[in-house]
Formats: sequence, structure tokens, C-alpha cells
Amino acid sequence: MINVGIVGYGNLGRGIEAALLQTSDMKLAGVFSRRNPSTVKTRTDVPVYSMDDLLNHKDEIDILVLCGGSATDLPVQTPALAENFNVIDSFDTHAKIPEHFASVDAAAKKGGNIAIISCGWDPGMFSLNRLYANSILPEGSDYTFWGKGVSQGHSDAIRRIEGVADARQYTIPVDSALEAVRSGSAPELTTRQKHTRECFVVAKEGADLAKIEKEIVEMPNYFSDYDTTVHFISAEEMARDHSELPHGGFVIRTGKTGLNKEHNHVIEYSLKLDSNPEFTASVITAFARAAVRLHKEGATGCKTVFDIAPAYLSPLSGEELRKKML
Amino acid sequence: MINVGIVGYGNLGRGIEAALLQTSDMKLAGVFSRRNPSTVKTRTDVPVYSMDDLLNHKDEIDILVLCGGSATDLPVQTPALAENFNVIDSFDTHAKIPEHFASVDAAAKKGGNIAIISCGWDPGMFSLNRLYANSILPEGSDYTFWGKGVSQGHSDAIRRIEGVADARQYTIPVDSALEAVRSGSAPELTTRQKHTRECFVVAKEGADLAKIEKEIVEMPNYFSDYDTTVHFISAEEMARDHSELPHGGFVIRTGKTGLNKEHNHVIEYSLKLDSNPEFTASVITAFARAAVRLHKEGATGCKTVFDIAPAYLSPLSGEELRKKML
Repeated sequence: MINVGIVGYGNLGRGIEAALLQTSDMKLAGVFSRRNPSTVKTRTDVPVYSMDDLLNHKDEIDILVLCGGSATDLPVQTPALAENFNVIDSFDTHAKIPEHFASVDAAAKKGGNIAIISCGWDPGMFSLNRLYANSILPEGSDYTFWGKGVSQGHSDAIRRIEGVADARQYTIPVDSALEAVRSGSAPELTTRQKHTRECFVVAKEGADLAKIEKEIVEMPNYFSDYDTTVHFISAEEMARDHSELPHGGFVIRTGKTGLNKEHNHVIEYSLKLDSNPEFTASVITAFARAAVRLHKEGATGCKTVFDIAPAYLSPLSGEELRKKML
Repeated sequence: MINVGIVGYGNLGRGIEAALLQTSDMKLAGVFSRRNPSTVKTRTDVPVYSMDDLLNHKDEIDILVLCGGSATDLPVQTPALAENFNVIDSFDTHAKIPEHFASVDAAAKKGGNIAIISCGWDPGMFSLNRLYANSILPEGSDYTFWGKGVSQGHSDAIRRIEGVADARQYTIPVDSALEAVRSGSAPELTTRQKHTRECFVVAKEGADLAKIEKEIVEMPNYFSDYDTTVHFISAEEMARDHSELPHGGFVIRTGKTGLNKEHNHVIEYSLKLDSNPEFTASVITAFARAAVRLHKEGATGCKTVFDIAPAYLSPLSGEELRKKML
């Protein structure tokens, strides 16, 4: 039995808690929180401990799932904890992955532990599909589309605008762009051609709606490069229609083979997810199993999804896998 | 530079020859044939040798790609050659994979070599996607659809009917079944509901067309469980419209997460291939690179796609992969 500790009990932590219930070889040993443990109630009556007590539970835990944020939590937590525990995180600041990898790798090697970073679906399953498809078709073009789904970063950006009480932003891939890519014509697509952004906003009483809309659609980095639509709705509509966190997307590679490049091929991987945090947690749970197995074989250091042979993810034996899934 | 030998110069062997031209770290050392080498002309002027000379070229070859058939060639060739070479094959008789694995594993271990069996897209990339999706979503349903594409086994079965000069059979997934699966409703689908079969037949002069059609649609195992349509065409139409070997398909897993299984997820992987043998060859080429790397690290024995960490497939370094694809 693999004993898992959750560090940080937000949406992702609750997703890990639920995902572990679907395994027969893994269980939740405890939740560790920076909040006062007496104020945190888990959904499955698992004990909650203070982060300060973590080292006292070292012997009860085979791996820690770090559920903090990529901006400030994980760059500190993952290397710090990798010295004493096997760890896995979902660090998703793409540009800073090399730096994060280096600091986590040093810590994990020092402690003789395994750390997996940047696990989830992007980075994660989408990255894996980019790697497989690029290895198979060296001459081709890559495309990643996201959505339809809620972008928390874009929703937060809207919430910071004066007069906004609440907001939800959906990223939507453009169907005609997807079809152009699938045709194998290898189109060059601008940011605007690939995705649209749809915003649902609850305004504070008396707020200037036209001003809010203008601030959204003209916001640099977040919205100005996209065709953006803004809908003002009531707090009740927000609660009724936009309380979930769906997401998904498409990774497509098109490429050519043959002595004269006469044959086209399209490799497509897509996800349609009702719950982004629960699916991310499900991916992390499978890779946590792999991390503990690798550690038992004597491996140490930082790994990514690229470094894990797929058989390690499954509770089935190699023999069962070859019989049932090959 | 990884030196590759091709054993058997049919469609798949020619696909390997073309795929190697798209790599910068691999090259074709020679083709080995059971035919008289002087009668075999490669498309890129690579030397052709007799199979009987294979052992004389042992030092020039890092891995042999075995391009024979699963029925009679590979069960004998793969274990025999794994004693002296790293080898990779596309053995696709699903029911006999455990047996094939055992005999190849023993031979490869005896010789201190690596063997990869059952590589391609199904078995191969489709198997990998079944494994990843099952590991992520333990509670769910699996679906594999094939096509639209040419089934060589079904085409051959038609060609054996009296009065048939030539035939091409397309396996076609049923759109409504695909949509039902994607909806997450986890439908139970019969063989007939999942695929239709479309046959193009060139009849010999004076043949009884009605009798041929009846024999096709009623043929057990091959056609009787499907809705099958038969078109009689001329030899010219066959040559003009049906000379390619396209194929593809879909691997879909739907599953539920959440404490009350309240969230649905759909994972879909699909391939749309202009040339089945060239794509299969491209997959094998990437895994051949992995096999040689594993062997250099000291690994031996039989492996499948499940046992290979994805990073081994790419010519890029771990650092480059993390930077560009994660």
C-alpha cells in the first residue's frame, strides 16, 4: 500500500483525496495545511496536520503531493520537501521549468528521493503527446488548442478590475482553425485565429459597465490579442451556470512521410474534462504511484512525465498489461 | 550514429528506409532479404544482402528491424535473431503476444540484447493510450475504433473467393457510435454498431457477381457480423482510386471522478494516416532509437512500448525536451 500525504487542501488537494479512493494500492495518510488544522475539515475524515509537523510523519508517508501554486508556493516547497520526501507537483510556469527542475533535482538527489515536477495535463499529458508525436513524425507542425474551459488566471485578471464583483472567463478554440489544422495543410495561425475568450461578469451596484467591458477587451497580454465577448450576469446566474471548472483541449501534430513526403498524417490527442482540478489530480495520482515504484528500485532525483516508462503508472503487472492492453 | 538493418523489404521495410532519412542520428546499414539479393533494388541504393549473411554483418548493425509477417515469420525470426542482435518487430497477433514475449525475452537475455515487440500503432501507440487513460481514470470505459482504412486481411479474404481478380476492403467507424461514446454515456456497442465494411471488387470476366457479393457479406468472422457493402469496379478504377493504404482510428476512454462520481471526462487519441505502413515504420524507427539507447545503458531482454520512458524516443536531450515540449 502506497501512503500519500497531501500538502495544501484546495481544489487540487480535494481532487487527490477523491482520486485515491479509486485506487486499491494507494491511500491517503493525511493532509498537511498551513492553516490551523482544527479549521480544516476533509471530505473523507482524513486527519489534518500542521505543515510544521510534516517531518514527524516522515515514516508514515511514501510520497507527498504538493498542491500549492506555481507562482510562490512550489518554487520554495518542492525543493525544500524533496530533501526529506518523495514529492510530486504540478508546477506549470513553462518558462521557469528548467530552473525549477535544477533546484528540485539537487534536493532530491541530496535526500535520496524521487521528485516528479510539472505533472498534470498541460504540462503533463499534453507534453507527452507532443513528445511522442514529434518523435514519430520528425517533419511536421505542432498545434495546441485549449478549451472550452475556465481559465482561472484570466478570471482573476477580470476580478481585479474596479467595479467587478465576480468573473468567469472561458477560453474557446476556434472550430475553423481546428479544421484547418486537421486537414494537414499546416496553417500558420495567429493568436487571434486560434482561440476566442468569453467572459461572464457580475458587476457591483452602480458600476460603469461600458468601462468594465472596455478594460477587459483592451487588457494587454490577457485579452487584447483575442476576440473577446463580455456578458454581464447576476450573482445568481453566476452561481447557477458557472460554478464548475471544466477544461480540455487538443494537441495535434501533422507531418509527412515517404521518400517524396507524399503522405500526410494527423496525430490528435484531446481532453474534454468536467473538472480540471479532479482530472489533474487523477494524472498526478497515477504518476505518484510511478514515483514510489521508481524510488523502491533505487532511482533518485527529479523526473518529468518524459522520464517515466508508462507501465509504472498502472497497478497491473507487466504480464497483465501485455495481455489486456497491448 | 545508430546503424539499422532491415530484415524483409516489403511495404514496411520500405517505410523504415524512408523514415530513417528523416533522422539525423540513425542510418540504414543494409537490407537483408530471403530473395536473391541481386533481384532486390532498394529505393535509396542501400546494399542488399542475403539473410544467410546476417551474422557476417553483426558488427555493422546496432539494431535489426524485422519486417516480416506475424503469422509465420516473426514467431521464428524474432527469437532467433534476438540472440545475436538488438531487434524490433511489429508482431500484431494480440492473442499470442504473451507467448511471443516469453520466447523473445529468453533469447534476448541469453544474447545480452534488447528486443522490442509489437511496435507500431495497434499494437503500439493505441496500446500506450489505453494504458495511460486507464491509469488516469480507473473507473471508466474503453473504446477502440479503426478506420477509415484498408484492412489487408479482409482484402485478402475477398481475393480468395472464386471469380475475384482483385479486392480492397475499407473498415469504417460508425459516426453515431463515435458520438455516443464521446458524450460520456458509456454505451455498450455491438460489433455491427461500431464499424461498417465497404468492399471494392474487380471480378473476373464472366464471374457471377451476385454469388460473389453473397459470399462476401455472409463470410463468417470477416463480414457476417457487419453491415457490408460491395461495389464492383474495373481494374482501371482499382488502380486509380484504391492504390494507397490509408488507415487510422480512435482510442477513447471515458471515466468519472469526484467523491460522488459527478464529473465526466473524455480522453481521445486519434490517427488519420495516408500510409499505414509508413506511419508504422515511423513509430518503429523512434522505438528502435530507444532500444539502442537502453542497450547502451546495459538493459537486456524483451520490452514493449509500455516499458520505454518516452524521452528515449527523441533525438533531443532531456534538457531540450523540458524546455521545448514540457
